[in-house]
Amino acid sequence: MTKLKPSDKALVPFVSVDHMMQLIHTVGLEPMMQGLAECIETDFKRWEVFDKTPRVASHSATGVIELMPTSDGEVYGFKYVNGHPDNTKGGLQTVTAFGLLADVSNGYPVLLSEMTILTAMRTAATSALVARYLAPKDSKVMAMIGNGAQSEFQSIAMKAIVGIEEVRLYDIDPAATRKCAANLAGSGLRVVPCDSAEEAILGAQIITTCTADKQYATILTDNMVGSGVHINAIGGDCPGKTELAPAILHRSDIFVEFPEQTRIEGEIQQLDADHPVTELWQVMTGQARGRTSDKQITLFDSVGFAIEDFSALRYVREKAAETQLFHPLDLLADPDDPRDLFGMLQRAGRA
Amino acid sequence: MTKLKPSDKALVPFVSVDHMMQLIHTVGLEPMMQGLAECIETDFKRWEVFDKTPRVASHSATGVIELMPTSDGEVYGFKYVNGHPDNTKGGLQTVTAFGLLADVSNGYPVLLSEMTILTAMRTAATSALVARYLAPKDSKVMAMIGNGAQSEFQSIAMKAIVGIEEVRLYDIDPAATRKCAANLAGSGLRVVPCDSAEEAILGAQIITTCTADKQYATILTDNMVGSGVHINAIGGDCPGKTELAPAILHRSDIFVEFPEQTRIEGEIQQLDADHPVTELWQVMTGQARGRTSDKQITLFDSVGFAIEDFSALRYVREKAAETQLFHPLDLLADPDDPRDLFGMLQRAGRA
Repeated sequence: MTKLKPSDKALVPFVSVDHMMQLIHTVGLEPMMQGLAECIETDFKRWEVFDKTPRVASHSATGVIELMPTSDGEVYGFKYVNGHPDNTKGGLQTVTAFGLLADVSNGYPVLLSEMTILTAMRTAATSALVARYLAPKDSKVMAMIGNGAQSEFQSIAMKAIVGIEEVRLYDIDPAATRKCAANLAGSGLRVVPCDSAEEAILGAQIITTCTADKQYATILTDNMVGSGVHINAIGGDCPGKTELAPAILHRSDIFVEFPEQTRIEGEIQQLDADHPVTELWQVMTGQARGRTSDKQITLFDSVGFAIEDFSALRYVREKAAETQLFHPLDLLADPDDPRDLFGMLQRAGRA
Repeated sequence: MTKLKPSDKALVPFVSVDHMMQLIHTVGLEPMMQGLAECIETDFKRWEVFDKTPRVASHSATGVIELMPTSDGEVYGFKYVNGHPDNTKGGLQTVTAFGLLADVSNGYPVLLSEMTILTAMRTAATSALVARYLAPKDSKVMAMIGNGAQSEFQSIAMKAIVGIEEVRLYDIDPAATRKCAANLAGSGLRVVPCDSAEEAILGAQIITTCTADKQYATILTDNMVGSGVHINAIGGDCPGKTELAPAILHRSDIFVEFPEQTRIEGEIQQLDADHPVTELWQVMTGQARGRTSDKQITLFDSVGFAIEDFSALRYVREKAAETQLFHPLDLLADPDDPRDLFGMLQRAGRA
């Protein structure tokens, strides 16, 4: 029996960049943010079942390439992601990513997906999910400091998940603010471009910082931050890269994804290794307390964790199947007789 | 400027299973074995430039999923590979694999390739390359014990690279031997099916063992192995899986890819942790001696190492470009302005 067409198991559903964009528009940007946040929350609430391997990094003079694997015992996932700060000079993305899910029981991949856009989506969905737990009740205004690739996603997610009505934009580059404001024009948010970080945080209950410098920068100084706000710190996400003055960290209650990773990559790399932090999954399961007073400064020291990618891929796997927005990729060899790989190769030569 | 077509850098060349088979037939099976061996030899000779990260394994009750990364400082590569011994019961492959190369300078992937077939090719090419260094001069006869998916590839590689003229086949399952013999019928090799391992090794200068049981098995016992042979031990390649009696190991000079990995996964897991072994790259560079006498038993304790996959992907990248046997895969988001990922997404919605 000669069979040259691969079986279903050998064809791995592939969600391209184009399909991912179509998927977002088919589901709707805000509903997809909500759906992603729901998957992430579900997975954070079952935190203990996950295999939490540290990411495997390959560093070079110009950047880093990382593999971020995890597994819940039934499904295995990993993300490939690079970080090359100088890429933008050549018109390339600083960060590109793709991801994969596989069936733990037989090791066969079940989804390959672009993750450059999906990572932007899941990062924003995570921020907004965390803000729903930690930001002051009825937060309506967010300061968005740093108006790069992540800024619109953050704004939309905070609208969809927290109910934010106004974003106040600031970037050291006014062109970035103009771009962000233009992109958010039809979003339903009130968009206020500002001339300084100080102006941006006026009246904001949530302050999101997302700047890209790979250096110890001080985007927020101590005297800028009043009591009662929630700080969503996205940009400090690798060794040597932070955004907040240490004094702010000392005034804040700090919440993190995975302490082992955040102490190396996050804002808290500026603090002692035993500085107290609260794990978000424990807040979500009720094992730890989130915001406890109106005066408290809460800080989400976001670095991005493999489980969030896993949750996002899980969501995409389901939605891609529903919408048929994928290509079947001929990635796995599938001989009729598993021992007869060579015979399959020979028959292909004759065909 | 609305640009919806991704740029060249955003499209990653993808070599499917079908394209890999076409590539092998276009290049020719034996020339491709030789080309792969040449790439592997080149890379073994520059062993010290490689980043030799241990593989990252995720174990489950039914098997293992591994990521095997490496880099030579200019190109980064990794392989995804699973090992699920019970898969064949359900008509699936025990091992499936795919791999990726990326440009270290900017982190952009430059090749995605199937590697189930390619791994079979590179494993055989490595075995034959090593046999060219270690087997007795003018070896003409190989015993092939274990006639599964790897057996034909091993036989062809030993013909193309070492000059073997006869293979003597044995498997506990006669159907496997019949399959292997049928597949090798037009290969130019003299194929001798045998009824026992003892019969198969009669007159053989090279003994290749490649059986699949995930347990301590004894495919070769001490009294079966005479002096002067080269043993190419493929099957013992994970903890708890070996093929050779310890007494044979004690009579042999043992050669390995990467001792740190082989002591865990190879035949030598049966020996003391300080049992002397020779690294193959040192034999190839002339820093260590290979075969030194006619009486010596040389043993290649093969487990498969990330650098071999890297070499194989490097070869495929070049040949795929020459033959155009690849698809451009829309894997990476590529906005005109790297900071304007959201704008790209919005324009796709309007299109």
